[in-house]
Amino acid sequence: MPLIQIDLMRELYDRQHEAIEAAIHDAQIEALGIPSDDRFQVFRPHDDGELRFDPTYGNVDRRSLILIHVTMVDKYDVSTKQDFYRAVVRRLGALDIRSEDVLLCIVENAAHDWYAGKIRGE
Amino acid sequence: MPLIQIDLMRELYDRQHEAIEAAIHDAQIEALGIPSDDRFQVFRPHDDGELRFDPTYGNVDRRSLILIHVTMVDKYDVSTKQDFYRAVVRRLGALDIRSEDVLLCIVENAAHDWYAGKIRGE
Amino acid sequence: MPLIQIDLMRELYDRQHEAIEAAIHDAQIEALGIPSDDRFQVFRPHDDGELRFDPTYGNVDRRSLILIHVTMVDKYDVSTKQDFYRAVVRRLGALDIRSEDVLLCIVENAAHDWYAGKIRGE
Repeated sequence: MPLIQIDLMRELYDRQHEAIEAAIHDAQIEALGIPSDDRFQVFRPHDDGELRFDPTYGNVDRRSLILIHVTMVDKYDVSTKQDFYRAVVRRLGALDIRSEDVLLCIVENAAHDWYAGKIRGE
Repeated sequence: MPLIQIDLMRELYDRQHEAIEAAIHDAQIEALGIPSDDRFQVFRPHDDGELRFDPTYGNVDRRSLILIHVTMVDKYDVSTKQDFYRAVVRRLGALDIRSEDVLLCIVENAAHDWYAGKIRGE
Repeated sequence: MPLIQIDLMRELYDRQHEAIEAAIHDAQIEALGIPSDDRFQVFRPHDDGELRFDPTYGNVDRRSLILIHVTMVDKYDVSTKQDFYRAVVRRLGALDIRSEDVLLCIVENAAHDWYAGKIRGE
Protein backbone atom coordinates (compact mmCIF):
# COMPACT_ATOMS: atom_id res chain seq x y z
CA MET A 1 0.00 0.00 0.00
CA PRO A 2 2.37 2.69 -0.96
CA LEU A 3 0.39 5.92 -1.16
CA ILE A 4 1.57 8.22 -3.92
CA GLN A 5 0.78 11.94 -3.64
CA ILE A 6 1.77 14.02 -6.65
CA ASP A 7 1.90 17.82 -6.70
CA LEU A 8 2.51 19.16 -10.20
CA MET A 9 1.68 22.04 -12.51
CA ARG A 10 -1.87 22.00 -13.83
CA GLU A 11 -0.71 22.17 -17.44
CA LEU A 12 1.36 19.01 -16.97
CA TYR A 13 -1.48 17.33 -15.13
CA ASP A 14 -3.99 18.12 -17.86
CA ARG A 15 -1.69 16.93 -20.61
CA GLN A 16 -0.21 13.77 -19.09
CA HIS A 17 -1.68 12.67 -15.80
CA GLU A 18 -2.69 9.22 -17.01
CA ALA A 19 0.78 8.57 -18.41
CA ILE A 20 2.38 9.89 -15.21
CA GLU A 21 0.15 7.64 -13.15
CA ALA A 22 1.22 4.62 -15.20
CA ALA A 23 4.91 5.57 -15.13
CA ILE A 24 5.05 5.83 -11.35
CA HIS A 25 2.91 2.75 -10.85
CA ASP A 26 5.01 0.66 -13.20
CA ALA A 27 8.18 1.87 -11.46
CA GLN A 28 6.76 0.60 -8.16
CA ILE A 29 6.04 -2.79 -9.68
CA GLU A 30 9.49 -2.93 -11.28
CA ALA A 31 11.60 -1.75 -8.33
CA LEU A 32 9.52 -2.44 -5.22
CA GLY A 33 7.78 -5.57 -6.42
CA ILE A 34 4.31 -4.44 -5.36
CA PRO A 35 1.23 -6.23 -6.74
CA SER A 36 0.02 -4.69 -9.99
CA ASP A 37 -3.35 -3.80 -8.45
CA ASP A 38 -1.88 -1.99 -5.41
CA ARG A 39 -2.62 1.47 -6.74
CA PHE A 40 -3.39 4.54 -4.60
CA GLN A 41 -2.50 7.89 -6.13
CA VAL A 42 -3.61 11.43 -5.35
CA PHE A 43 -2.93 14.15 -7.92
CA ARG A 44 -2.88 17.79 -6.86
CA PRO A 45 -2.66 20.13 -9.85
CA HIS A 46 -1.21 23.56 -9.07
CA ASP A 47 -1.45 27.02 -10.55
CA ASP A 48 1.52 29.28 -11.17
CA GLY A 49 3.29 30.33 -8.00
CA GLU A 50 2.21 27.45 -5.79
CA LEU A 51 5.27 25.24 -6.36
CA ARG A 52 8.43 27.03 -5.18
CA PHE A 53 11.97 25.82 -5.75
CA ASP A 54 15.51 26.96 -6.36
CA PRO A 55 16.68 26.45 -9.97
CA THR A 56 20.17 25.20 -9.10
CA TYR A 57 20.12 23.66 -5.60
CA GLY A 58 22.40 20.61 -5.42
CA ASN A 59 24.06 21.53 -8.73
CA VAL A 60 20.92 20.54 -10.58
CA ASP A 61 19.55 22.52 -13.55
CA ARG A 62 15.95 22.67 -12.33
CA ARG A 63 13.27 24.30 -14.51
CA SER A 64 10.06 23.06 -12.93
CA LEU A 65 8.99 20.87 -10.02
CA ILE A 66 7.00 17.67 -9.76
CA LEU A 67 6.77 16.43 -6.18
CA ILE A 68 6.19 12.71 -5.74
CA HIS A 69 5.53 11.98 -2.07
CA VAL A 70 5.52 8.29 -1.18
CA THR A 71 4.19 6.89 2.09
CA MET A 72 5.04 3.22 2.46
CA VAL A 73 5.80 0.46 4.91
CA ASP A 74 9.36 0.43 6.27
CA LYS A 75 10.68 -2.66 4.53
CA TYR A 76 12.86 -1.54 1.61
CA ASP A 77 16.63 -1.08 1.82
CA VAL A 78 18.57 1.87 0.45
CA SER A 79 19.54 0.26 -2.84
CA THR A 80 15.92 -0.75 -3.48
CA LYS A 81 14.82 2.83 -2.91
CA GLN A 82 17.49 4.06 -5.30
CA ASP A 83 16.35 1.51 -7.89
CA PHE A 84 12.87 2.94 -7.44
CA TYR A 85 14.12 6.51 -7.96
CA ARG A 86 15.91 5.43 -11.14
CA ALA A 87 12.83 3.59 -12.42
CA VAL A 88 10.58 6.59 -11.78
CA VAL A 89 12.80 9.15 -13.50
CA ARG A 90 13.57 6.83 -16.42
CA ARG A 91 9.86 6.27 -17.06
CA LEU A 92 8.98 9.94 -16.54
CA GLY A 93 11.85 10.82 -18.87
CA ALA A 94 10.07 8.90 -21.61
CA LEU A 95 7.25 11.43 -21.15
CA ASP A 96 9.72 14.33 -21.55
CA ILE A 97 9.65 15.07 -17.83
CA ARG A 98 13.20 16.03 -16.86
CA SER A 99 14.80 14.03 -14.02
CA GLU A 100 16.20 17.31 -12.69
CA ASP A 101 12.67 18.56 -12.09
CA VAL A 102 11.64 15.55 -9.97
CA LEU A 103 11.54 15.69 -6.17
CA LEU A 104 10.88 12.29 -4.60
CA CYS A 105 10.31 12.02 -0.86
CA ILE A 106 9.63 8.81 1.09
CA VAL A 107 7.99 8.68 4.51
CA GLU A 108 7.70 5.29 6.18
CA ASN A 109 5.30 3.71 8.62
CA ALA A 110 4.22 0.21 9.70
CA ALA A 111 1.82 -2.25 8.11
CA HIS A 112 -0.64 -1.70 10.96
CA ASP A 113 -0.74 2.02 10.12
CA TRP A 114 -2.94 1.26 7.11
CA TYR A 115 -6.61 0.57 6.59
CA ALA A 116 -7.38 -0.06 2.93
CA GLY A 117 -11.07 -0.94 2.85
CA LYS A 118 -10.80 -3.48 5.67
CA ILE A 119 -8.86 -4.33 8.82
CA ARG A 120 -5.70 -6.22 7.83
CA GLY A 121 -5.97 -9.96 8.44
CA GLU A 122 -9.75 -9.91 8.85
CA MET B 1 -2.72 17.03 18.10
CA PRO B 2 -3.56 14.52 15.49
CA LEU B 3 -3.64 16.31 12.16
CA ILE B 4 -6.28 14.94 9.81
CA GLN B 5 -5.86 15.52 6.07
CA ILE B 6 -8.76 14.37 3.91
CA ASP B 7 -8.65 14.01 0.14
CA LEU B 8 -12.07 13.27 -1.31
CA MET B 9 -14.26 13.90 -4.32
CA ARG B 10 -15.64 17.43 -4.55
CA GLU B 11 -19.20 16.19 -4.81
CA LEU B 12 -18.86 14.30 -1.52
CA TYR B 13 -17.14 17.28 0.09
CA ASP B 14 -19.88 19.68 -0.97
CA ARG B 15 -22.63 17.39 0.22
CA GLN B 16 -21.24 16.13 3.53
CA HIS B 17 -18.01 17.72 4.69
CA GLU B 18 -19.40 18.91 8.01
CA ALA B 19 -20.75 15.46 8.80
CA ILE B 20 -17.48 13.84 7.72
CA GLU B 21 -15.54 16.24 9.93
CA ALA B 22 -17.72 15.30 12.90
CA ALA B 23 -17.54 11.56 12.17
CA ILE B 24 -13.75 11.48 12.08
CA HIS B 25 -13.42 13.79 15.04
CA ASP B 26 -15.83 11.77 17.16
CA ALA B 27 -13.98 8.57 16.20
CA GLN B 28 -10.78 10.13 17.54
CA ILE B 29 -12.45 11.01 20.81
CA GLU B 30 -13.99 7.54 21.08
CA ALA B 31 -10.98 5.42 20.14
CA LEU B 32 -7.92 7.58 20.84
CA GLY B 33 -9.28 9.48 23.82
CA ILE B 34 -8.22 12.90 22.54
CA PRO B 35 -9.74 16.05 24.08
CA SER B 36 -12.92 17.12 22.33
CA ASP B 37 -11.39 20.45 21.31
CA ASP B 38 -8.27 18.92 19.72
CA ARG B 39 -9.44 19.45 16.16
CA PHE B 40 -7.18 20.08 13.17
CA GLN B 41 -8.56 18.98 9.81
CA VAL B 42 -7.65 19.90 6.25
CA PHE B 43 -10.08 19.02 3.47
CA ARG B 44 -8.87 18.79 -0.11
CA PRO B 45 -11.75 18.38 -2.57
CA HIS B 46 -10.80 16.76 -5.86
CA ASP B 47 -12.14 16.76 -9.38
CA ASP B 48 -12.61 13.65 -11.50
CA GLY B 49 -9.38 11.90 -12.30
CA GLU B 50 -7.30 13.17 -9.40
CA LEU B 51 -7.94 10.22 -7.05
CA ARG B 52 -6.65 7.01 -8.61
CA PHE B 53 -7.22 3.54 -7.22
CA ASP B 54 -7.71 -0.08 -8.17
CA PRO B 55 -11.32 -1.28 -7.76
CA THR B 56 -10.46 -4.68 -6.29
CA TYR B 57 -7.02 -4.48 -4.59
CA GLY B 58 -6.95 -6.57 -1.40
CA ASN B 59 -10.18 -8.36 -2.38
CA VAL B 60 -12.12 -5.19 -1.64
CA ASP B 61 -15.03 -3.98 -3.82
CA ARG B 62 -13.86 -0.39 -4.12
CA ARG B 63 -15.99 2.16 -5.99
CA SER B 64 -14.52 5.46 -4.88
CA LEU B 65 -11.72 6.72 -2.63
CA ILE B 66 -11.64 8.88 0.45
CA LEU B 67 -8.12 9.25 1.82
CA ILE B 68 -7.84 10.05 5.53
CA HIS B 69 -4.22 10.79 6.37
CA VAL B 70 -3.48 11.04 10.08
CA THR B 71 -0.28 12.51 11.53
CA MET B 72 -0.07 11.89 15.26
CA VAL B 73 2.28 11.33 18.17
CA ASP B 74 3.69 7.80 18.46
CA LYS B 75 1.84 6.60 21.54
CA TYR B 76 -1.02 4.32 20.42
CA ASP B 77 -0.72 0.55 20.20
CA VAL B 78 -1.93 -1.59 17.32
CA SER B 79 -5.28 -2.52 18.81
CA THR B 80 -6.02 1.14 19.61
CA LYS B 81 -5.31 2.03 15.99
CA GLN B 82 -7.62 -0.74 14.81
CA ASP B 83 -10.32 0.50 17.18
CA PHE B 84 -9.86 3.90 15.57
CA TYR B 85 -10.21 2.45 12.07
CA ARG B 86 -13.40 0.68 13.11
CA ALA B 87 -14.82 3.82 14.71
CA VAL B 88 -14.09 5.91 11.62
CA VAL B 89 -15.65 3.53 9.12
CA ARG B 90 -18.67 2.83 11.36
CA ARG B 91 -19.37 6.55 11.68
CA LEU B 92 -18.72 7.23 7.99
CA GLY B 93 -20.97 4.27 7.18
CA ALA B 94 -23.81 6.11 8.89
CA LEU B 95 -23.27 8.78 6.20
CA ASP B 96 -23.51 6.15 3.45
CA ILE B 97 -19.76 6.25 2.86
CA ARG B 98 -18.70 2.68 2.15
CA SER B 99 -15.93 1.25 4.35
CA GLU B 100 -14.44 -0.32 1.23
CA ASP B 101 -13.82 3.14 -0.20
CA VAL B 102 -11.86 4.37 2.83
CA LEU B 103 -8.07 4.52 2.84
CA LEU B 104 -6.65 5.41 6.26
CA CYS B 105 -2.94 6.06 6.65
CA ILE B 106 -1.14 6.95 9.89
CA VAL B 107 2.25 8.65 10.08
CA GLU B 108 3.79 9.16 13.51
CA ASN B 109 6.11 11.71 15.04
CA ALA B 110 7.03 12.98 18.53
CA ALA B 111 5.30 15.51 20.78
CA HIS B 112 8.13 17.98 20.20
CA ASP B 113 7.44 17.83 16.45
CA TRP B 114 4.37 20.03 16.96
CA TYR B 115 3.78 23.73 17.41
CA ALA B 116 0.07 24.47 17.84
CA GLY B 117 -0.09 28.20 18.50
CA LYS B 118 2.62 28.14 21.17
CA ILE B 119 5.74 26.28 22.25
CA ARG B 120 4.74 23.23 24.28
CA GLY B 121 5.18 23.73 28.02
CA GLU B 122 5.52 27.50 27.79
CA MET C 1 16.04 19.12 1.71
CA PRO C 2 13.32 20.05 4.07
CA LEU C 3 10.06 19.97 2.13
CA ILE C 4 7.61 22.64 3.24
CA GLN C 5 3.91 22.12 2.53
CA ILE C 6 1.66 25.04 3.41
CA ASP C 7 -2.13 24.88 3.61
CA LEU C 8 -3.68 28.32 4.09
CA MET C 9 -6.69 30.42 3.22
CA ARG C 10 -6.78 31.59 -0.40
CA GLU C 11 -7.15 35.22 0.63
CA LEU C 12 -3.94 35.03 2.66
CA TYR C 13 -2.18 33.17 -0.13
CA ASP C 14 -3.17 35.75 -2.74
CA ARG C 15 -2.11 38.65 -0.56
CA GLN C 16 1.16 37.39 0.92
CA HIS C 17 2.42 34.10 -0.43
CA GLU C 18 5.78 35.47 -1.56
CA ALA C 19 6.41 37.05 1.84
CA ILE C 20 5.30 33.85 3.60
CA GLU C 21 7.65 31.82 1.42
CA ALA C 22 10.54 34.10 2.35
CA ALA C 23 9.66 34.12 6.05
CA ILE C 24 9.62 30.34 6.36
CA HIS C 25 12.69 29.92 4.19
CA ASP C 26 14.69 32.48 6.15
CA ALA C 27 13.61 30.81 9.41
CA GLN C 28 15.06 27.54 8.10
CA ILE C 29 18.34 29.22 7.27
CA GLU C 30 18.43 30.96 10.64
CA ALA C 31 17.46 28.06 12.89
CA LEU C 32 18.29 24.89 10.95
CA GLY C 33 21.32 26.18 9.10
CA ILE C 34 20.20 24.91 5.70
CA PRO C 35 21.86 26.25 2.54
CA SER C 36 20.12 29.35 1.21
CA ASP C 37 19.27 27.63 -2.07
CA ASP C 38 17.66 24.56 -0.43
CA ARG C 39 14.12 25.65 -1.18
CA PHE C 40 11.18 23.31 -1.80
CA GLN C 41 7.75 24.68 -0.92
CA VAL C 42 4.25 23.65 -1.94
CA PHE C 43 1.40 26.09 -1.32
CA ARG C 44 -2.17 24.84 -1.17
CA PRO C 45 -4.69 27.69 -1.03
CA HIS C 46 -8.05 26.77 0.49
CA ASP C 47 -11.59 28.04 0.25
CA ASP C 48 -13.83 28.67 3.25
CA GLY C 49 -14.67 25.51 5.17
CA GLU C 50 -11.69 23.42 4.12
CA LEU C 51 -9.47 24.26 7.12
CA ARG C 52 -11.14 23.13 10.35
CA PHE C 53 -9.91 23.91 13.83
CA ASP C 54 -11.02 24.61 17.36
CA PRO C 55 -10.71 28.29 18.38
CA THR C 56 -9.38 27.64 21.88
CA TYR C 57 -7.62 24.23 21.95
CA GLY C 58 -4.54 24.33 24.17
CA ASN C 59 -5.63 27.62 25.73
CA VAL C 60 -4.79 29.41 22.48
CA ASP C 61 -6.98 32.20 21.03
CA ARG C 62 -7.08 30.84 17.48
CA ARG C 63 -8.88 32.79 14.73
CA SER C 64 -7.59 31.15 11.58
CA LEU C 65 -5.26 28.32 10.59
CA ILE C 66 -2.09 28.16 8.56
CA LEU C 67 -0.64 24.66 8.46
CA ILE C 68 3.10 24.40 7.84
CA HIS C 69 4.02 20.75 7.34
CA VAL C 70 7.76 20.08 7.30
CA THR C 71 9.32 16.83 6.08
CA MET C 72 13.02 16.71 6.87
CA VAL C 73 15.92 14.44 7.69
CA ASP C 74 16.10 13.24 11.31
CA LYS C 75 19.09 15.22 12.51
CA TYR C 76 17.83 18.16 14.57
CA ASP C 77 17.47 18.10 18.35
CA VAL C 78 14.46 19.37 20.29
CA SER C 79 15.87 22.81 21.09
CA THR C 80 16.81 23.35 17.43
CA LYS C 81 13.25 22.53 16.42
CA GLN C 82 11.92 24.96 19.01
CA ASP C 83 14.30 27.64 17.71
CA PHE C 84 12.84 26.95 14.29
CA TYR C 85 9.27 27.32 15.56
CA ARG C 86 10.18 30.63 17.21
CA ALA C 87 11.90 31.89 14.05
CA VAL C 88 8.91 30.97 11.88
CA VAL C 89 6.29 32.63 14.05
CA ARG C 90 8.45 35.72 14.67
CA ARG C 91 8.92 36.22 10.93
CA LEU C 92 5.27 35.47 10.14
CA GLY C 93 4.31 37.86 12.93
CA ALA C 94 6.04 40.63 10.99
CA LEU C 95 3.48 39.90 8.24
CA ASP C 96 0.61 40.22 10.73
CA ILE C 97 0.08 36.48 10.84
CA ARG C 98 -0.76 35.61 14.43
CA SER C 99 1.41 32.97 16.13
CA GLU C 100 -1.75 31.52 17.63
CA ASP C 101 -3.02 30.68 14.14
CA VAL C 102 0.09 28.69 13.15
CA LEU C 103 0.18 24.88 13.22
CA LEU C 104 3.64 23.49 12.56
CA CYS C 105 4.13 19.75 12.15
CA ILE C 106 7.43 17.97 11.50
CA VAL C 107 7.75 14.48 10.01
CA GLU C 108 11.22 12.99 9.74
CA ASN C 109 12.89 10.54 7.40
CA ALA C 110 16.44 9.62 6.33
CA ALA C 111 18.76 11.25 3.80
CA HIS C 112 18.33 8.26 1.48
CA ASP C 113 14.58 8.89 1.42
CA TRP C 114 15.12 11.84 -0.92
CA TYR C 115 15.73 12.23 -4.63
CA ALA C 116 16.14 15.89 -5.56
CA GLY C 117 16.98 15.85 -9.26
CA LYS C 118 19.67 13.21 -8.93
CA ILE C 119 20.72 10.18 -6.86
CA ARG C 120 22.60 11.41 -3.78
CA GLY C 121 26.36 11.02 -4.08
CA GLU C 122 26.28 10.43 -7.85
